[in-house]
Amino acid sequence: MDKKITILGAGLVGSLLSIFLSKRGYQVNTYESRPDPRKADLSAGRSINLALSHRGLKGLHAVGLANEVKERCIPMPGRMIHDLAGDLNFQPYGKEGQYINSVSRSGLNELLLDKAEEAGAKIYFDYKCIEVDYQLTQSRFLHDGQELTISADFIFGADGAFSAMRNAFMRTDRFNYQQHYITAGYKELHIPPTDSGEFAIDPNALHIWPRGKFMLIALPNLDKSFTVTLFLPFEGEKSFEKLQDENSVRQFFQEEFADAVPLMPDLLHDFFTNPTSSLVTVRCYPWVKENCALIGDAAHAIVPFYGQGMNAGFEDCFVLDQLLEQHGELNQDLLARYQELRKPDGEAIADLALYNFIEMRDKVADPQFILQKKIEKRLNELYPDQWLPLYPMVTFSDLRYSEALAIGRKQQSIMDKVLADPEVESRWENLDFASIVAQL
Amino acid sequence: MDKKITILGAGLVGSLLSIFLSKRGYQVNTYESRPDPRKADLSAGRSINLALSHRGLKGLHAVGLANEVKERCIPMPGRMIHDLAGDLNFQPYGKEGQYINSVSRSGLNELLLDKAEEAGAKIYFDYKCIEVDYQLTQSRFLHDGQELTISADFIFGADGAFSAMRNAFMRTDRFNYQQHYITAGYKELHIPPTDSGEFAIDPNALHIWPRGKFMLIALPNLDKSFTVTLFLPFEGEKSFEKLQDENSVRQFFQEEFADAVPLMPDLLHDFFTNPTSSLVTVRCYPWVKENCALIGDAAHAIVPFYGQGMNAGFEDCFVLDQLLEQHGELNQDLLARYQELRKPDGEAIADLALYNFIEMRDKVADPQFILQKKIEKRLNELYPDQWLPLYPMVTFSDLRYSEALAIGRKQQSIMDKVLADPEVESRWENLDFASIVAQL
Repeated sequence: MDKKITILGAGLVGSLLSIFLSKRGYQVNTYESRPDPRKADLSAGRSINLALSHRGLKGLHAVGLANEVKERCIPMPGRMIHDLAGDLNFQPYGKEGQYINSVSRSGLNELLLDKAEEAGAKIYFDYKCIEVDYQLTQSRFLHDGQELTISADFIFGADGAFSAMRNAFMRTDRFNYQQHYITAGYKELHIPPTDSGEFAIDPNALHIWPRGKFMLIALPNLDKSFTVTLFLPFEGEKSFEKLQDENSVRQFFQEEFADAVPLMPDLLHDFFTNPTSSLVTVRCYPWVKENCALIGDAAHAIVPFYGQGMNAGFEDCFVLDQLLEQHGELNQDLLARYQELRKPDGEAIADLALYNFIEMRDKVADPQFILQKKIEKRLNELYPDQWLPLYPMVTFSDLRYSEALAIGRKQQSIMDKVLADPEVESRWENLDFASIVAQL
Repeated sequence: MDKKITILGAGLVGSLLSIFLSKRGYQVNTYESRPDPRKADLSAGRSINLALSHRGLKGLHAVGLANEVKERCIPMPGRMIHDLAGDLNFQPYGKEGQYINSVSRSGLNELLLDKAEEAGAKIYFDYKCIEVDYQLTQSRFLHDGQELTISADFIFGADGAFSAMRNAFMRTDRFNYQQHYITAGYKELHIPPTDSGEFAIDPNALHIWPRGKFMLIALPNLDKSFTVTLFLPFEGEKSFEKLQDENSVRQFFQEEFADAVPLMPDLLHDFFTNPTSSLVTVRCYPWVKENCALIGDAAHAIVPFYGQGMNAGFEDCFVLDQLLEQHGELNQDLLARYQELRKPDGEAIADLALYNFIEMRDKVADPQFILQKKIEKRLNELYPDQWLPLYPMVTFSDLRYSEALAIGRKQQSIMDKVLADPEVESRWENLDFASIVAQL
C-alpha cells in the first residue's frame, strides 16, 4: 500500500491522525502553518491546558501512547466550587476512581509530533494552506514566500476551527455551514506556585467560581501553577467592555472572586496583556467531498465547556481507524461511513458543550442542581447498568455522544418531575428509585 | 447634504434603495457586477417572474411607482391546486379583492433602474465587487480588467445571497453566519400560449401540482405564457438524480403531472437545457458594521415558497426610509436601529418561507388543511379584527413578519385543538367561534 495522504494541520488531531494513518502503512505528509513547536515558543494564543478524558485516551491507547501521556497528567476527579464567601464544595465527576486529566496542550502536541515522525509521517512546518482542490485532491501552500501544489490520494483537513479545506468546501454548491459565537469571551490568567513551591490550591480538581452569567475556572499544571480562565460576556452590565482600567478590574475581581485575588499576583498585568478571545461553534455538512475529509475542529469546532474538543477529535481519528480495521482500505465509501457515524456525534457534542456553560457558570451553585446530582448518584449506585448520569456518559463512557445526549434529555425530563415534588429535599432518600429508573 | 453612498448591487433591492436614497438627497453610486439588463439579455439563471404583494408594493408606492408597476402585473387571488387526476381546486389567498401579483423580474428591474437614474443615482455595470473594507468604508471592484477602489460615507450591500460585503464581514471576529440548503432543488420549465395565442390555463391563479415531497408550480406572464418550476429533491426515490434520461423524465411527468404535460411541448428540451439550482437560506448577524449595512438577500436570503424574498427586501428599504423620515440623517445610530428592527423580521420570514414549502407541496392537498382554511376564513369573517389567518398576515398586512409568525404559531396551536375533535368535519359550521377567538 503506497497511497499518499496529505494531512492539513499538525495540531493535536492532525498529529494523532498522522500516527494512525502511518501505522496503517500510508505515506503521510502533514503540513502545518505554524513553526515547529518543538523549536519555537508558541504558548501564546491557544489554551495552555486541556481536559483529557476517556475518549481521548481511547485514541491515544490505540496508538500505544495512553500510558506515556498519563504520566504527564494531573487527575481531576471533580469540580471544586468556590462560592462568593470563598467556601468550597467538591462535586465528584463520576464514581470513585474516575477523573478527567489536566494536560499541557504543547507538551501533548510535541509528544504526538515525535511519535508521528517515528511512525513514518513527514511533517512540514511553516506551510500555510491557501487552497484545496477536492476534485484534483490537491492542496496549495505558501512556504518561504513560494507557492507549492501538493497532490495526494487523500487529504484530511485537521486544520482547526478556521480550516482551509472547509473554506474550499464553502465555495461549493449545497454546503451547509454555521458559525455561531456565544456572547461571552475568555481571557487567560495565572496562579503561580506558592513561595514554597507548592500548588496554591488543591491540584486534584477543576476549580470553578460560578457567578451566574460568568465564571472563573482554574486547571492545574505540572509546574504547580494553575491556568485560570475568565469567561465573561463581551457586553452588558458585567462584561469585558466594562473592564477597561485597573480600578474596575481590581474591584470586579475583589467583589466576585475575592479568594482567588491573593493567588494571582500578576492579575492586572495578565488581564491587560492577554487577549480577550471569542468562542465559536462551527457546524457544517458534508464533511467529505470525494477523497477529502474534515476531521476534529475543522468539522465541528465547539465551545470548551464540556472539555471535549480534543477528545471528540481524537475519537474521530479512533473511529476512522476502526473503520480501516474493519474494511481494509481508505476509499470514498469508508469516508462516507466515517461521516455518517461522526456527524450526529459532532452535532451532539456541540450542543452538550453549549449547555455545559450554563451548568458550569450557574447550575453548579444551585441547591436544586446539587440535589439532582445526589439523586442521580444514588440511582447510579442502585442501577449501575440502567442509570448513568449525563456527565459520566459523555466523559467516562464509550456511548456515542448522540446517544448520551438523547438519554440525558430523557433523564432530565424524568428528574424534572422528581424535583417538582416540593418535599423532595427532605424525603429524597426514600424516593421510589425503581419506578424512576423504570421511566427511562 | 452631500454624503456619498455606495450601493453594491443593482438588482431589485439595490435599484429601489438607489431611488430612496437619491430622493433623500444622497449622492448615490450603485455598482452591479452584471451588464446592464436594459442592453443585454440576462434571462438565464434567476427566476423569470416573482410574486409581488403588499410589502413590496408599499415600498414601490413610497417612491411613487406602485401604479406603474401594477400595470405590468397579473393578479393571482389564489392557488389553483391540480390533483393527480387533473381535477382543479381553487383556494383564495385572502378576502375578495386581495391578490398577489405575478410580475417579470427583468421588467421590474429595468423600470427601477430607469427611475433610479432619473432620481439622480449613477449606476455602474460590469463592476464586480471583490472586497469591502468596512473600517475605511471602501469597496474594491474589478472592471474591464482593472482594479478600482471607491470610497464613500456609507456602503450598502444589496448584492444578494452571495454578497461580497457579507464575505468581508465573515472574516471579522464574532460574525454569526449560517447558510443552509434544503434537500430539494428547482428547474424552470415553460408553458407557452396556446395556438390561438391565449393563456393555456387560468392566468388568475398561482398553479400548484402538490405531490407530497415535491411539486410543480406555474405563474402567468404578460405574454400569455407561464413560467413553470419543478421543485424536487436532489437525491432519493423521486429526485433529480433519477431523472437522467428522456424516458424517465417523460414517465415521471406523465405519472405525476399528466394534465400539465400536453401544455409543455418543449418539456424535454427545457428539462435538459435549463440548470438544476439549489435553494439556500442565509442568516447572519450583525447586518451593520460601522457605516456599512447589508440589505435584502445579502442580509437574509430565503427560499422562495412564501413569495416574500423581494417583498422583504423592499420592506427593508421602506423601513430604512421611514427611519430617515423620522430621524433625518443617515448615521450609525440609524443603521443600528434599522438592524434592530429588521433582523427579527428577516429571521421570521426565513422560517415562514421554509415552512411554506411543506404547505405548498403537501398540505394544500390535505382535507384537514382545507377544513382549517374554511374555519379560519369563517373566524376572519366573524372577527375580522381579531383573527387574520397567517397567509394574509404575511402577504396582505403591515404586521411585522416576526409578529405574524408569533400570532400564526398561536393560531395553529388553537386550530390543532379544534381539529382534534373527530367530528369537526361535520359540525364545523356550528363551532363556538367566539370561544376559539377568545383563546388568542
